[in-house]
Amino acid sequence: MDYQPINARVSPEGSLEILSSQEVNSLKDDGEGGLYRLFRQCALAVMNSGSHTDDCKAIMETYADFDIRLVQQPRGIKVELINAPAAAFVDGAMIRGMRENLFSVLRDIVYTHSILTGPIGDDTSTSAGITNLIFQILRNAGLFLQGHQPNIVVCWGGHSISREEYDYSKEVGHQLGLRGLNVCTGCGPGAMKGPMKGATIAHAKQREKNGRYIGITEPGIIAAEAPNPIVNELVIMPDIEKRLESFLRVGHGIIVFPGGAGTAEEILYLLGVLMHPENRELPFLIIFTGSAENADYFQMIDDFVRGTLGNEAASRYRIIIDDPVQVAREMKAGMEVIREFRRRCQDAYYFNWLLKIDPVFQQPFEPTHDSMRALALHRNQPVHLLASTLRRAFSGIVAGNVKEHGIRQVEERGPFEISGDADILEPLETLLTTFVQQHRMKLPGSTYRPSYRIVPRES
Amino acid sequence: MDYQPINARVSPEGSLEILSSQEVNSLKDDGEGGLYRLFRQCALAVMNSGSHTDDCKAIMETYADFDIRLVQQPRGIKVELINAPAAAFVDGAMIRGMRENLFSVLRDIVYTHSILTGPIGDDTSTSAGITNLIFQILRNAGLFLQGHQPNIVVCWGGHSISREEYDYSKEVGHQLGLRGLNVCTGCGPGAMKGPMKGATIAHAKQREKNGRYIGITEPGIIAAEAPNPIVNELVIMPDIEKRLESFLRVGHGIIVFPGGAGTAEEILYLLGVLMHPENRELPFLIIFTGSAENADYFQMIDDFVRGTLGNEAASRYRIIIDDPVQVAREMKAGMEVIREFRRRCQDAYYFNWLLKIDPVFQQPFEPTHDSMRALALHRNQPVHLLASTLRRAFSGIVAGNVKEHGIRQVEERGPFEISGDADILEPLETLLTTFVQQHRMKLPGSTYRPSYRIVPRES
Amino acid sequence: MDYQPINARVSPEGSLEILSSQEVNSLKDDGEGGLYRLFRQCALAVMNSGSHTDDCKAIMETYADFDIRLVQQPRGIKVELINAPAAAFVDGAMIRGMRENLFSVLRDIVYTHSILTGPIGDDTSTSAGITNLIFQILRNAGLFLQGHQPNIVVCWGGHSISREEYDYSKEVGHQLGLRGLNVCTGCGPGAMKGPMKGATIAHAKQREKNGRYIGITEPGIIAAEAPNPIVNELVIMPDIEKRLESFLRVGHGIIVFPGGAGTAEEILYLLGVLMHPENRELPFLIIFTGSAENADYFQMIDDFVRGTLGNEAASRYRIIIDDPVQVAREMKAGMEVIREFRRRCQDAYYFNWLLKIDPVFQQPFEPTHDSMRALALHRNQPVHLLASTLRRAFSGIVAGNVKEHGIRQVEERGPFEISGDADILEPLETLLTTFVQQHRMKLPGSTYRPSYRIVPRES
Amino acid sequence: MDYQPINARVSPEGSLEILSSQEVNSLKDDGEGGLYRLFRQCALAVMNSGSHTDDCKAIMETYADFDIRLVQQPRGIKVELINAPAAAFVDGAMIRGMRENLFSVLRDIVYTHSILTGPIGDDTSTSAGITNLIFQILRNAGLFLQGHQPNIVVCWGGHSISREEYDYSKEVGHQLGLRGLNVCTGCGPGAMKGPMKGATIAHAKQREKNGRYIGITEPGIIAAEAPNPIVNELVIMPDIEKRLESFLRVGHGIIVFPGGAGTAEEILYLLGVLMHPENRELPFLIIFTGSAENADYFQMIDDFVRGTLGNEAASRYRIIIDDPVQVAREMKAGMEVIREFRRRCQDAYYFNWLLKIDPVFQQPFEPTHDSMRALALHRNQPVHLLASTLRRAFSGIVAGNVKEHGIRQVEERGPFEISGDADILEPLETLLTTFVQQHRMKLPGSTYRPSYRIVPRES
Repeated sequence: MDYQPINARVSPEGSLEILSSQEVNSLKDDGEGGLYRLFRQCALAVMNSGSHTDDCKAIMETYADFDIRLVQQPRGIKVELINAPAAAFVDGAMIRGMRENLFSVLRDIVYTHSILTGPIGDDTSTSAGITNLIFQILRNAGLFLQGHQPNIVVCWGGHSISREEYDYSKEVGHQLGLRGLNVCTGCGPGAMKGPMKGATIAHAKQREKNGRYIGITEPGIIAAEAPNPIVNELVIMPDIEKRLESFLRVGHGIIVFPGGAGTAEEILYLLGVLMHPENRELPFLIIFTGSAENADYFQMIDDFVRGTLGNEAASRYRIIIDDPVQVAREMKAGMEVIREFRRRCQDAYYFNWLLKIDPVFQQPFEPTHDSMRALALHRNQPVHLLASTLRRAFSGIVAGNVKEHGIRQVEERGPFEISGDADILEPLETLLTTFVQQHRMKLPGSTYRPSYRIVPRES
Repeated sequence: MDYQPINARVSPEGSLEILSSQEVNSLKDDGEGGLYRLFRQCALAVMNSGSHTDDCKAIMETYADFDIRLVQQPRGIKVELINAPAAAFVDGAMIRGMRENLFSVLRDIVYTHSILTGPIGDDTSTSAGITNLIFQILRNAGLFLQGHQPNIVVCWGGHSISREEYDYSKEVGHQLGLRGLNVCTGCGPGAMKGPMKGATIAHAKQREKNGRYIGITEPGIIAAEAPNPIVNELVIMPDIEKRLESFLRVGHGIIVFPGGAGTAEEILYLLGVLMHPENRELPFLIIFTGSAENADYFQMIDDFVRGTLGNEAASRYRIIIDDPVQVAREMKAGMEVIREFRRRCQDAYYFNWLLKIDPVFQQPFEPTHDSMRALALHRNQPVHLLASTLRRAFSGIVAGNVKEHGIRQVEERGPFEISGDADILEPLETLLTTFVQQHRMKLPGSTYRPSYRIVPRES
Repeated sequence: MDYQPINARVSPEGSLEILSSQEVNSLKDDGEGGLYRLFRQCALAVMNSGSHTDDCKAIMETYADFDIRLVQQPRGIKVELINAPAAAFVDGAMIRGMRENLFSVLRDIVYTHSILTGPIGDDTSTSAGITNLIFQILRNAGLFLQGHQPNIVVCWGGHSISREEYDYSKEVGHQLGLRGLNVCTGCGPGAMKGPMKGATIAHAKQREKNGRYIGITEPGIIAAEAPNPIVNELVIMPDIEKRLESFLRVGHGIIVFPGGAGTAEEILYLLGVLMHPENRELPFLIIFTGSAENADYFQMIDDFVRGTLGNEAASRYRIIIDDPVQVAREMKAGMEVIREFRRRCQDAYYFNWLLKIDPVFQQPFEPTHDSMRALALHRNQPVHLLASTLRRAFSGIVAGNVKEHGIRQVEERGPFEISGDADILEPLETLLTTFVQQHRMKLPGSTYRPSYRIVPRES
Repeated sequence: MDYQPINARVSPEGSLEILSSQEVNSLKDDGEGGLYRLFRQCALAVMNSGSHTDDCKAIMETYADFDIRLVQQPRGIKVELINAPAAAFVDGAMIRGMRENLFSVLRDIVYTHSILTGPIGDDTSTSAGITNLIFQILRNAGLFLQGHQPNIVVCWGGHSISREEYDYSKEVGHQLGLRGLNVCTGCGPGAMKGPMKGATIAHAKQREKNGRYIGITEPGIIAAEAPNPIVNELVIMPDIEKRLESFLRVGHGIIVFPGGAGTAEEILYLLGVLMHPENRELPFLIIFTGSAENADYFQMIDDFVRGTLGNEAASRYRIIIDDPVQVAREMKAGMEVIREFRRRCQDAYYFNWLLKIDPVFQQPFEPTHDSMRALALHRNQPVHLLASTLRRAFSGIVAGNVKEHGIRQVEERGPFEISGDADILEPLETLLTTFVQQHRMKLPGSTYRPSYRIVPRES
């Protein structure tokens, strides 16, 4: 890997990236309310996607003198890059996939800003208002294609997985792609990259030139899980809750590969949302899958879900071990169920309006030592609220592992403390310990220093 | 022409027409602030484009029981039409060009509404704010294509012209099209349709599959000057001033064919804007052209301009009689001048940011008996302000001729009265009288009842 | 019209025009068996399409010093033109439609030559062999699009028609185009150009970017009936019989507009072929149509057909006067009949294999004074053979009117003599005389000197 | 792998696959001169591409009851498959890449047959005639794209290579693809598949939707080296010599990965051709490359070349070890040299007309026990003829290894015997022995039984 930084001017594709003078100014503004810092950070993440580190602090320090500027040009806006990561370039020219993703970042940051600082109608204090905002950002990003059948498979799983796990996820993507399905992930390496690579090869075999490799991320995670340049539809949501909601509104089925704390967070979010009574009849195909050696892993996850949320929650997913063809066939069949259901209910294929998401899953959770300590990990609540609380616990742990803000807090004040009822803390601790042992918290090579500490409730 | 109304459901093309629940509701709302009435009226105009009347009151009465509704569908929104004009359909299926234009109307109405009721940043009380709004509406309509050279020729002229004038405008369009130029007009029949037809044939000869036939209109005029279905990029600006500004920001050259009061209004607007001192160095190719029999007409216009605004104003345009090839060649050469200038000044090819438009040309003029009477038609003002005032006079006359609101006022209270200095009123009256004699105020067949009365100032 | 000749180098589009050294040499060869003369003549005709003369001798003389050469280039072959007609160019650049047609000429001449001088299998002495040759030339020209429904309407009619007749043919083309139908003609002005222009505008309204404007011609007629540049699929068949067969194999329906001797020839060919007993059940929609003033014309044609071939022949066509919408609706409905029939019989949509064409219609007829005199115009033969003989009579008359070889013969030896039974000669003479009176033999302006003389049989 | 055979009907893409009745009949004919057997065998090979055997006899036996038939359909020809390999299908539908390749087989077999049985002009007894035939087959296959810069990299190397060698070839393909280069191979697994996979991923990153993955094969090898479905331009040449010539005429540079006897054959062919005196000035970039562990391998090849053909032959290639980026950069730079040279010499970019190929390299070599025994492996000849003789020796060995006909001969009469001068036989034997030891003769798992025997000349 060549770390010699590069200076370059790059042009966008498409007309959405045409900016007004006003918008250009907001991106140049690095004061309060200005977007410069956010834009610089996300742009750097996109360009750093070739690198093999998930340590965003390290990235930011390596490219401390990286700078990005907008330049008005007769044929449209250009972006000037100073001291940019060399991995984004081939012989001095930026890889086109990176270039497109760079301008997707630009597009979403500008648009989200204009919506949030703007319209009276965008009341993000209500649940409907938040969903409406998500709809608008996704629409502006061009994610809604009319006339398309349901065919988007969301793939979740760890960014730090073994070679065998990676190859397995690739083969699943290959089988999905052979069946004309598209892949949506949270960006990043590992289980988010494998299925896209596999699908790319399969789409080539099927002469599918318009394969979709959708990446949905958010500013806090993008540096740690940079979009690889195969991602050809990148969306930057404002925060993690809106990103998770996007997956559920846009995806028609979800596959979960082995992962760590981030994957557990996603599973808890997903099950928590689906366990809302209004979603009981809603079809949503969820498959947990991995190679033979992952059988134990999913047994452990299954135990944790049954032990904390109960058997009904466990009934929403299927576990398929070592059978990519079967995974893809079930997913393909599930698409037909979705299609029928949406048609019957007159719901859009491209956006799951009918899914009820409780506001507790929509409100951003800011992990701090106080908020982590305050999590109510007890059974005196509806099970979907318990799922939400557990989700937040994992969210905090992930932040302490890989997010800039979280890492700094843990560095300054030590691990986050998590407490609660013993019959919840116990399966939680079991799970977390195994994650650490299996190196599911960090990329291999780096030693993991836990960002959390389980504190049994003093009773 | 078949007047048997038709009921149908039609689907949109493209992803911009995907609406949120909130937006659907605003279009259904026919109360105060709701968009239903506006949408219905513009939709009706689009579908009525085959008809040969410019009497919008008559149109509205003919289709009094026309109704339009949005229907949410799994694959996106649909529009349900009840008692729609049969001319929009071929054997029961809507002509695709009409269908696209119908959804362009939808797109612009929803978007403009969301901007105007929304963002803090969109301050339309300032000149920059208005220009910014125009930029956003045009961008949202997909009008800005990056990487394209300047090639948009705005064609102005009467919608009520003779067969010979029409054929001449068609041949000019043909010569433009053979040279790879695109056509932008205000929609409607006559000199706005001829160049598009000619360019369509020429583009077919040149195998140019992406020829652009841009129509820019506004709710007040769309019924009288309905977009013909060749128009493949239709934009609905909120009012006439923003529509005129759009022509100047988007077009790279302007051709004026013979017309009536509306054309005179456009000429006065154009010259008034260009005579602002800051625009002195700005290249902008303007050609007045017509067949041999129109030589007198343009002599008359030239006399009027020189008599009211002076010779400098007249130096901004060229008059070419009976030579479509020459018109097209000069226009093609002018494009190169624009390209060079914009490149040198780092201005966008797709939007003329550098053009200075005095606020007086941006503020909507609401023609009433009072406002028309109050127009200051005297020489005690900078010439570009006089141009603006003359422009408003014509604007009122056009409104009294063909716009619903204007017609009603004139019906109720008699013609608008226009007064001022004799040396301005005199050339004005000469011009208007000739327009009436030459049937340039209405489509042939209908008798013209003047919507104005020249009232010499009592001195 | 600018007669200043132009020198230029033009490049082809597409990969079929890539030539081997051997093929390039055959095109350069102006000796016996060489293709230079043929190529030069057809190329000149294509480039002369803007002109308003149908006198091919005059054209050849005007451009006596026109030369055309092939130039090998790194990126493929180029064609160098010396003293080429200026009408093919816009400001020095060849109109792209002309350029494409120029290379279609090249493609077909080279390919036909290679087939005819080549394969053992291409035995053009048998009926099947001729049909196979036609199939191969059309396939090589890319005329067969798989997966397309039947939608090709062949339009026949005079190249020398009145403005009203032209406008009517344009409106028919417009109505066909609005219904998604494509137009195939024999190239040239008049009734062959009108429907294409109308369809072009209609396809633009329907956003049909892949409208097909197919021209099928042959070297003997191309100079007189040059393909206009709207033609986007041009095929040069080796002779008139293969050209006529192509229309019937490729077209799914036929519309006949008013014309002269050439049109009569086509009608006789068409009816003669269809009256073969094996074609009795074969659906083939034929419509004769014209404006109200053409009612008499078609009455006359109808009389002639009934008077010579009988009522059964007349039952194969419908006459529709002054109703373009009805013509297009019936044609559209006829397409569905064809589709059903071909599907049932497992015949290709793109090539009418099932149509039986008697060898007498396939063998070239070389009109000379002897062969014309020898035509057997009597009733002692099956009616389809009588049709064939009548067809040849008209073919000779057309050759004497507009084909280089025919004109020369008539100049040298006087008009062709036609003799036969009185009850056939009489309706024939009536028809021909009317054609002359109605100026249907030549473009207006030139005086017609008959190329034939009716000689009653001495009995 | 699922061996349950499948029955299906499949349709082609594109218009070249439209067949005449005559052509359909030739494909159905399994008598003398009929094409059925050839078509069946190649079709089976294409569909078997997923399998992991290179034993064509085994393949033919496994699918002994495979049958293939042409069915005329209204919308074009269809192919009916009986007992086809399941690997070609996904849930019952044929993988589109396979389907396209199946119809490429059809296209080339029919076309080559029509040329060879046909045109007087196609005299394959002369060198120019053979090159002309190759040109025609490649043109008919659509391989010549006008207006494209030189960018085709031919990759040669073993089909039976290690995982590390495979990964290295993939990374080279990735680096080529990132630089916009396309890949052409002989089809099959190993070093022919790796570069295509790598280029596919790279083209996805660069948003290159029209990446070319060209496979050139011939009936004798296609079963052993089946085209993988990424190959999107497949051509079947009539024999191995025309296949090798195609690589040199079409490719703009050649990369050689480690391989076995087949690769050695290709190297000898390549160097032999280039050492013809007339090719001395012709630029042709050749790179031998492999991972660090292959350094010895290429040393061995280099020794063999220097020991038999001399140092001048060795000066035509470069050896680059373990540096895919450098390989790709040199290849990219080499393209520019080719471009300049062809432009200067007015030679086509898409076909290397200037390359002189001695007839000895064009004449098919039929390996039999007699012809192999008769090879003149001595130094009393120009070096390019010695190269040709060595090439034939390897050709025979490959045939004995993997070609149906060769295998049968060796089974019946024992290994081919090769004799000659000791100073040529010695390096030859050294090379072959090493190939056997390194398992470069067969896919891993099968035991190699040599198809040759070195017999020192009795002197």
